[in-house]
Amino acid sequence: MSRSIDLAVIPGDGIGQEVVSEGLKVLSAVLPQDVKLETKEYDFGARRYHATGETLTDADLDALKQHDAILLGAIGDPSVPSGVLERGFLLKLRFAFDHHVNLRPSKLLPGVATPLAGQPEIDFVVVREGTEGPYTGNGGTIRKGTEHEVATEVSVNTAFGVERVVRDAFARAQARPRKKLTLVHKNNVLTFAGHLWTNIFNKVAQEFPEVSTDYIHVDAATIYLVTDPARFDVIVTDNLFGDIITDLAAAVSGGIGVAASGNINPSREFPSMFEPVHGSAPDIAGQGKADPTATVLSVALLLRHLGYDGEADRIDAAVTADLTERAALGARSTSQIGDALAARVAG
Amino acid sequence: MSRSIDLAVIPGDGIGQEVVSEGLKVLSAVLPQDVKLETKEYDFGARRYHATGETLTDADLDALKQHDAILLGAIGDPSVPSGVLERGFLLKLRFAFDHHVNLRPSKLLPGVATPLAGQPEIDFVVVREGTEGPYTGNGGTIRKGTEHEVATEVSVNTAFGVERVVRDAFARAQARPRKKLTLVHKNNVLTFAGHLWTNIFNKVAQEFPEVSTDYIHVDAATIYLVTDPARFDVIVTDNLFGDIITDLAAAVSGGIGVAASGNINPSREFPSMFEPVHGSAPDIAGQGKADPTATVLSVALLLRHLGYDGEADRIDAAVTADLTERAALGARSTSQIGDALAARVAG
Ligand SMILES: CC(C)[C@H](C(=O)O)[C@@H](O)C(=O)O
Ligand SMILES: CC(C)[C@H](C(=O)O)[C@@H](O)C(=O)O
Repeated sequence: MSRSIDLAVIPGDGIGQEVVSEGLKVLSAVLPQDVKLETKEYDFGARRYHATGETLTDADLDALKQHDAILLGAIGDPSVPSGVLERGFLLKLRFAFDHHVNLRPSKLLPGVATPLAGQPEIDFVVVREGTEGPYTGNGGTIRKGTEHEVATEVSVNTAFGVERVVRDAFARAQARPRKKLTLVHKNNVLTFAGHLWTNIFNKVAQEFPEVSTDYIHVDAATIYLVTDPARFDVIVTDNLFGDIITDLAAAVSGGIGVAASGNINPSREFPSMFEPVHGSAPDIAGQGKADPTATVLSVALLLRHLGYDGEADRIDAAVTADLTERAALGARSTSQIGDALAARVAG
Repeated sequence: MSRSIDLAVIPGDGIGQEVVSEGLKVLSAVLPQDVKLETKEYDFGARRYHATGETLTDADLDALKQHDAILLGAIGDPSVPSGVLERGFLLKLRFAFDHHVNLRPSKLLPGVATPLAGQPEIDFVVVREGTEGPYTGNGGTIRKGTEHEVATEVSVNTAFGVERVVRDAFARAQARPRKKLTLVHKNNVLTFAGHLWTNIFNKVAQEFPEVSTDYIHVDAATIYLVTDPARFDVIVTDNLFGDIITDLAAAVSGGIGVAASGNINPSREFPSMFEPVHGSAPDIAGQGKADPTATVLSVALLLRHLGYDGEADRIDAAVTADLTERAALGARSTSQIGDALAARVAG
C-alpha cells in the first residue's frame, strides 16, 4: 500500500466549496502520521466557465491524470445553461477516465429520518454503469426550432462495457454477507439493450454460484424501493436507470445529505473520482447550512479504493455515531458537523 | 353525447380476467337504463400466443378499431419471453391507435395505506407521452451473442409529438384548481431531446398564462415524490420517465391496486384504451385476491373520455367511500369489492 496520497481537489460550485473543506478536514484527521497527504485544488465549474468559456480542457485532463484520486464537491449553477457543465465537465471526466463503475451505497442508520413509515431496513449498494447507455451523447437534432424538429438520443450498450460492470457487481455481491445481486433494467421494452444486459448477467452468474440473483424492471424497482427496500443487497444497472434509482435510494435512506458516490476505474489506469450525490444547491450556498456527511462518506469510499480500509471503517463508524445521535445534537453548521466527525475519527 | 357504448373488452392474462369482470359489473351498474352497453370480448395475451403464435394482427386491429373504447385487464405471463407480448401487443396497440396521451392520476385518499410517513397530501396527474421516446423500438443489435455485441436503443422525439402532449397537459392543468404544470425530463444529460422538450414546453406555456410551470430532472422528481408529493399538480413527461415515475406515484398513493390509466387518442380517430397500471400478477391469479379498484377507476376514466362525466364522478365517489372505510371492512375477495362498488354506484 502506498504511504502517500496525492489528491486532486475540485470544490466546484455552490456548497461544493464548504463540503469539500470538511471532507479534507476529516481525511487529515483520520490518516496516520506516516501517510503523506498532498492536495492540489482545481478551479472548475461555473466561475471558470464564465471567465474563460472552458469546462475541461485536454491540459486539465493531463494534470488530473497525475493524481491518485479526485475529490469533487459539486458542479452546476443556474447561470450556466443546462447541460453545459454536466456534459462539458462531469460526464466528460467520467468518460475520459473510464469511470465505468459508479458505486452508490445506501444505508439507513437507526434514528435517521426517512420519508418511509416504520423505519425499514435499508442496506444495499447500487453499481451503476458509468460510461455507456443513454449517457454517451450520441444522437442529434434536425430542423431545430421548427415544427418538424426531430431529436434523438442513442443508448449505446456493448458486451465489453456491460460485462465488466456486471462482473464487478457480482464480485461485490460475493463479498457481502447476503450475496444477492439484482439486475434492474427494462428488458420488456428496451429489448435490444435489455437482452444484452440480461444475457451477460446470466452468463456471468455462472461464475458466481454462491450469489443469488434476480431481475426487476426499473419501474417496479421504484415500487420496491419504497415498499420493501430490505429486499435489495447489490443492484447492477444501466447508467440512466442508475441515476434515477440512486436518487430515490438516497431519499429513502436519509436523504441526499448523506449519499456518497464513487466514479471508479477499477483498472486504476486513471484516477477514480469521489463525490457526494447531491448537487451544488446554490440556494443554501455560503450559509454553512450544507451537510458535509455525503462528502465525508465519499472520502471513505476514496480511502477504501486506495487500500486504506481501516481508515475508511473509522470514518464510516464516526458517521454512524454522529447520525445516530443527531436528533439529540440540535442544529449544527457545516463546519460543526465536520469538526465533530474529525474529532471522532481522530479520537 | 352518444347514448350507447360499444366496448372492446380484453381480459388478458393472470388476474386480468377477474378484475375486468368487476370493472364491467360496476360499469353496468352505473349506466342509466337508456344507455345501451354492448361489449365484445377479445382473447389476447399468453394463451392466444401459445396457441397461434399471434399477438395482434392487422385483422385484430381492424376489429378493435370499430369500438368506442377498449377496456384491458392485463397482458403478460412468465411462460412468454420478456418483450414478446409487451412489444407485440401492448405497445403495438398504443402505437397503432396513436395513444399519445397516457393519463395516470394519483390521489392518496384518507385512511389508505401508503409507505410514506405522515400521510402526505397527494393529488396529481401524470400525462405521459405514449408514442415516442425510447419506446419506438428503434435501435438494434450487431454481433449478437459475441463479446463484440453492440446494442442500441434510439429515443425518437418530434416537435409534433411533444407539442401535442404538452398542449394536452397544459389544458388539463388549466382546468384544475391549482393550475400548475411540471415538466420532468433529464435535459442536462439528454440534451438533444431535453432541449426539444424544454423549448416546446416554454413556447406552449405562453398560451396558458394562468398555468404556473416548473421543471425538474427525473432523478430529483423521484426524491420529491417521496419527500414532498404535494408539490405536484400535473406532470408532463417522456414515455420512459413517465413509466418509471407513475409506478412510484402509484406506490406512494395507495399502491398499484388502485392505480388507473388511460391510453388516450384525444382526436378520437381511434378508440382509446383504459387499463389498470398493475400487471397480470400470475402468482395470485384465479384466487379472488386481486383488487379490482384500479380497473374500476380505469372504467371511470373511460366514461369521462366518452363524455359520461356524472357517471365517472359516481364511480370515483364510490371508490373514495370504499377505500376510506376499507380498514374497518376486513379482507374481501375481488368480487366482494366489485359488488360493494356496484352497489354504491347504483344506490
Ligand atoms: C449532474 C448529472 C450529470 C449527474 C448524472 O446524471 O449522472 C447527477 O445526476 C448524478 O447522479 O451524478
Ligand atoms: C408492460 C409495459 C410495456 C408497460 C410500459 O412500460 O409502458 C407498463 O410498465 C406500463 O406502465 O403500462
